[in-house]
Amino acid sequence: MENIGAGEESARILRDEIKALASEIQALKSVEGNEDLTERNVTCMMEQKPLASHESQKKFEIRCPRGTRDYGPQDMALRKQVLDVVTECFKRHGGVTIDTPVFELRNILMGKYGEEGGKLIYDLSDQGGELLSLRYDLTVPFARYLAMNKTVMYLKRYHIGKVYRRDNPSRGRFREFYQCDFDIAGSYDLMIPEAELLRIISEILNALDIGTFEIKVNHRLLLDGMFTVCGIPKKYFKTVCSSIDKLDKLPWENIRNELCTDKHIHSDVVNKLETFVRLREHDNSLTNFDLLNWFEKDETTSKNNDIQKAVSEMKQLLEYCELFGILSTVTIEPSLARGLDYYTGAIFEVTLKDTFEKTPMENGNADEEIQAVNIGSVAGGGRYDNLVSMFLPKQKVPCVGISIGIERLFTIMKEKSKMEHMRSKDTEILVVSAQKKLVKERMKICRLLWDNNIKAEMALKANPKMLDQMQYCEEHKIPLAVIVGERELEEGILKLRDVPSRTEQDIPRDSLVEELKRRLKHL
Amino acid sequence: MENIGAGEESARILRDEIKALASEIQALKSVEGNEDLTERNVTCMMEQKPLASHESQKKFEIRCPRGTRDYGPQDMALRKQVLDVVTECFKRHGGVTIDTPVFELRNILMGKYGEEGGKLIYDLSDQGGELLSLRYDLTVPFARYLAMNKTVMYLKRYHIGKVYRRDNPSRGRFREFYQCDFDIAGSYDLMIPEAELLRIISEILNALDIGTFEIKVNHRLLLDGMFTVCGIPKKYFKTVCSSIDKLDKLPWENIRNELCTDKHIHSDVVNKLETFVRLREHDNSLTNFDLLNWFEKDETTSKNNDIQKAVSEMKQLLEYCELFGILSTVTIEPSLARGLDYYTGAIFEVTLKDTFEKTPMENGNADEEIQAVNIGSVAGGGRYDNLVSMFLPKQKVPCVGISIGIERLFTIMKEKSKMEHMRSKDTEILVVSAQKKLVKERMKICRLLWDNNIKAEMALKANPKMLDQMQYCEEHKIPLAVIVGERELEEGILKLRDVPSRTEQDIPRDSLVEELKRRLKHL
Repeated sequence: MENIGAGEESARILRDEIKALASEIQALKSVEGNEDLTERNVTCMMEQKPLASHESQKKFEIRCPRGTRDYGPQDMALRKQVLDVVTECFKRHGGVTIDTPVFELRNILMGKYGEEGGKLIYDLSDQGGELLSLRYDLTVPFARYLAMNKTVMYLKRYHIGKVYRRDNPSRGRFREFYQCDFDIAGSYDLMIPEAELLRIISEILNALDIGTFEIKVNHRLLLDGMFTVCGIPKKYFKTVCSSIDKLDKLPWENIRNELCTDKHIHSDVVNKLETFVRLREHDNSLTNFDLLNWFEKDETTSKNNDIQKAVSEMKQLLEYCELFGILSTVTIEPSLARGLDYYTGAIFEVTLKDTFEKTPMENGNADEEIQAVNIGSVAGGGRYDNLVSMFLPKQKVPCVGISIGIERLFTIMKEKSKMEHMRSKDTEILVVSAQKKLVKERMKICRLLWDNNIKAEMALKANPKMLDQMQYCEEHKIPLAVIVGERELEEGILKLRDVPSRTEQDIPRDSLVEELKRRLKHL
Repeated sequence: MENIGAGEESARILRDEIKALASEIQALKSVEGNEDLTERNVTCMMEQKPLASHESQKKFEIRCPRGTRDYGPQDMALRKQVLDVVTECFKRHGGVTIDTPVFELRNILMGKYGEEGGKLIYDLSDQGGELLSLRYDLTVPFARYLAMNKTVMYLKRYHIGKVYRRDNPSRGRFREFYQCDFDIAGSYDLMIPEAELLRIISEILNALDIGTFEIKVNHRLLLDGMFTVCGIPKKYFKTVCSSIDKLDKLPWENIRNELCTDKHIHSDVVNKLETFVRLREHDNSLTNFDLLNWFEKDETTSKNNDIQKAVSEMKQLLEYCELFGILSTVTIEPSLARGLDYYTGAIFEVTLKDTFEKTPMENGNADEEIQAVNIGSVAGGGRYDNLVSMFLPKQKVPCVGISIGIERLFTIMKEKSKMEHMRSKDTEILVVSAQKKLVKERMKICRLLWDNNIKAEMALKANPKMLDQMQYCEEHKIPLAVIVGERELEEGILKLRDVPSRTEQDIPRDSLVEELKRRLKHL
């Protein structure tokens, strides 16, 4: 041992260090749900170690950040199609749109998303001046906008934008995704805006033709009232709520266990709660009105003011839904809770009844860890009357909104359209040359077409091959080709080719635009 | 002094500390151009001091982060109008669109934006796992996309999205703004894609009708060649470039001073350089061809291969521009440099010749420090043949692109449209009730209209006043009102009111949709 040279000695030390680090990594990995912490530690270790850092410099990774992905032209064409349906519906209902910055002062976001949500907020580095975070949803920025613009007391606004959550990509969650919100701000009469929102989401889902759906409705006051009646102390409301909300995904036994064992709620209390939240499970013949009547008549719940207020409001909502022709899709669901702190009245969640399989992302550049997403909830929302006054105590602007999980709709629509080739390019005409040295002639024709607002392209090479040009038409489903060659130049004509049928026709150069416009009208 | 009590003693210490901090702040503030550092230090100090932190908790600020702002409905309507023109043009030229995440792995962005640009990159906090930064432009993410999708060797893509720069808001710069890029990737023949890009920007500026503009063109090889001929060592190219680029804003004397004094370039060298970059200044009758011919014939430049290559390429570009009908707006400008590291060929910059004044933001929520923006450059771009291979050495995808400073176009268009009332809402019909207790009747009519894709709204109150409903029509320029009252219900009719003329007509209920569609067609 004493004879080991200096080089060997330092190599041994390094090897030992690596060994120690490896077991540290192992130890960290064994802590469940700690993937991010592990990653961070690994990164730090890598950066400190010369050997490792040399290694990491070599593999400079070309990829998107975890939980994010690119959208290629085909994906974008599909997205546009879906968003056009959504936007058209929002406008049909008098919506106007606003835009807010992608990051907010950190204070604006704090304390709005419950314990779980708060952990998922992306912070920007403190590079001097302000503490900023990426927006977590579009609702809090909307409330901040209303608080800042004190004269805006009424607003039907929609907002389509990306939001950011440091969620776990290995659980199939994206960290950057679009939301699509419609919110109604203003002191209106109860349940009229709510009913319009449910009509809006119904119109959109019907227009997209993606199968049957169910609109679940609950009310914050029904939840609060049930908890009170069961004898749950107020400080436990939030935590009980978040357990109850899992009832659509987990069996009651798991929820019961969570409440009794993890959250130390007395089993008598949990039993009482079970009666309320499993009403539908125990008797699936219950209509919405049966259910609400049960709460009106039950010995304990009939005496609770919160519950009676909630029941009467939901009856009103059902009546309006009938007038709007959407009653058959609405289900009152006493276990629906949703995780957000700011709801004060009606709460909605829209689920699809059919399920779809996931296809891999275009270009295969999605994070490999992202797995099949269970298509369930496609929209959610509710009333939040106090959010604006959280920012500005004197400003009372009641609000109610719905947020569409547009990413899920994209996934479903992609599955649906799998068979059809979606055009990502709008080009109507390719200007083609039959021989070499005609680039200037093609340019002149392109100019003429562009001057007349015709969607035209030419190969961007001086001497492209005829075959390549025609293949470009086929590949991009460009319906017409204008062909110029020496003969055509001599005779003052152009050849017009219908790409699918391959039929050709000579056109006098002077009447090209007119003829193209005529043909394009009939495509 | 010995008799001071414990409370008084600690108060004294705190007061002394505050005094010391105040002078530290003063000292920091006196360092010019150090606003952000000062801010950061002040923030840190505030957070450490209990007294100060108590103060800062009280003023919880409701505002956008510095250098960002909201867009209200009116602003958004204008933006949509401008973006529709831009998008339509991009599609006319066969553009397809992609979307990339708003943040990238930090390594992807490093070393792409020159010394100045690099400092402005927004970093995300290291919350475990990855080092991320907000995108600085749309070009580098596009090159990263091409490097990741190896089969994509040809692409005409456009991308409209927000980019982020930690620039100084007090110098009139926004930190979040839209860019609007069109790039052509692929091994095409020289100057054909370049000419199409210049045609695209011309079409857009003409369609927006915002006055005359000038497209300045230069070539990286002309710059490099001039520097070589002048005897500037290669390692000084970038720094000389960034000085020369200021020539459109500063007089030559300032540039000269910067080069000689700050950058230690020998005055003989600077004199030689002056001859080249001030060719146009010294003889403003020079045509583009005169200028290029000068470089072809001059004793020193005629022997430089880079310069001769640049001259021949630019002559080709001018010829193509003539064919595309845009030659009159193009000016070859040997001093045009632009700050980006990645340009390899032609470089463009588009400036407006008229200037406009700035109007305050809608809702007045812009950062107060943001001052009048000088409308000058509205677009810029160039060829960057090596950016993709910076990510993936084996992948050679030559690219050329143009980026439109769409924010400036919004500002100009806002100024232009100042007089007209821009509609932010599309609603065509307001369903109005003449008496109380008719909310359900209004709902039924709304449902009928929505079922027929008619853009309709109703007041969201149970018993709105007639006057309020009619005012809503006026305010939002809703052209038609359908009025239901007790008489109308009895007679099975509805009253249709033309809002601007206030003329009314009774319509049988059954023919309402038909009549509305007929009227809307003529609006």
